Amino acid sequence: MKRIHDKDDIIQVGLDLVLSRGFSATGVEAILKQANVPKGSFYNFFSSKEDFALAIIDKFVADRVEVFSPIFSDQSLPPLERVKKSFETLIKTFEGAECSKGCLIGNLGQEMADQFENVRQRLETYLQEWTKAVSRLLLQAQKENAIPADMDADMLAESLISSFQGALLRSKVKKSPEPLNNFIHLYFDVFLTKRKVT
Amino acid sequence: MKRIHDKDDIIQVGLDLVLSRGFSATGVEAILKQANVPKGSFYNFFSSKEDFALAIIDKFVADRVEVFSPIFSDQSLPPLERVKKSFETLIKTFEGAECSKGCLIGNLGQEMADQFENVRQRLETYLQEWTKAVSRLLLQAQKENAIPADMDADMLAESLISSFQGALLRSKVKKSPEPLNNFIHLYFDVFLTKRKVT
Repeated sequence: MKRIHDKDDIIQVGLDLVLSRGFSATGVEAILKQANVPKGSFYNFFSSKEDFALAIIDKFVADRVEVFSPIFSDQSLPPLERVKKSFETLIKTFEGAECSKGCLIGNLGQEMADQFENVRQRLETYLQEWTKAVSRLLLQAQKENAIPADMDADMLAESLISSFQGALLRSKVKKSPEPLNNFIHLYFDVFLTKRKVT
Repeated sequence: MKRIHDKDDIIQVGLDLVLSRGFSATGVEAILKQANVPKGSFYNFFSSKEDFALAIIDKFVADRVEVFSPIFSDQSLPPLERVKKSFETLIKTFEGAECSKGCLIGNLGQEMADQFENVRQRLETYLQEWTKAVSRLLLQAQKENAIPADMDADMLAESLISSFQGALLRSKVKKSPEPLNNFIHLYFDVFLTKRKVT
């Protein structure tokens, strides 16, 4: 049992460190030291540092699914409001961390996608799942006539998530949530409103 | 003269390596070896690796200004078309690199903004300058009645650039230019078109 506990500790500590410093800059020794786990035990749990990256991505996504699931299935809110609330929840977390760290998926996508094919594929899978969950809600919103029916829901969902990632990056450099708040305003009060071409 | 040449070589080689691998993963020795510059000379030119990061950012931005300037000032195109063309030009370069590397400003923003305050400030300055250049064109587009007058040009310019960065990141993970092409379509054919609230 101790070994499983150790592995969870390494993943949790490693996730926090990689979110703060990036993947390359996070040394295995620093993780083990902070997790209070014996030196040398890292490779008992992970076949490589890339394998460890996959484990922290899985953990990050599992945590995020726990946050998103109740929001996405909240029948008391219209579908579009659920999408909006899911982004606003992430923005609050980001603000709580003084506009630092951001989203592990975006961070590692930027840092690792070109060189670690397994990591790229894992991130791609999760981004597609996230897109599908948002797209389902956008389709419902279209049925309820809340957003224009001529917009492609899949394309729009992917664009929402990408634009959120871009606004997150902009806020991280600006050290201000303003770009994220503008993202919410522009998409949910302007772009997705029912407007007619004049 | 040789020393100045060496410094330029280090910056050019370093820029390419950091675009490919990221900042932390790029060792000083690898840069010097590839630039064919004597070991130990790095710190003759740069007071620190952070100082080197600032130099490659300046070089990246100078190169980009050379690409953007003739597009932004091209009187044969309407202002909104110039903005669109500037993004399309970056997309072509990205596609030419097999959807890898991306934008140094986005990459280093993601990797360094939390830990290297001088780098963060330099990136912030350049992002603000980019935003101003786009905003000026959007204001002209508004005067020509090409985009809705009720949209805030500064906010829209920042959002365009952020969403472009997000789409670039998405394309890097997907290894497909599709998210970038969708970004062009959604912003320039849908979101910014003159639509009336129904």
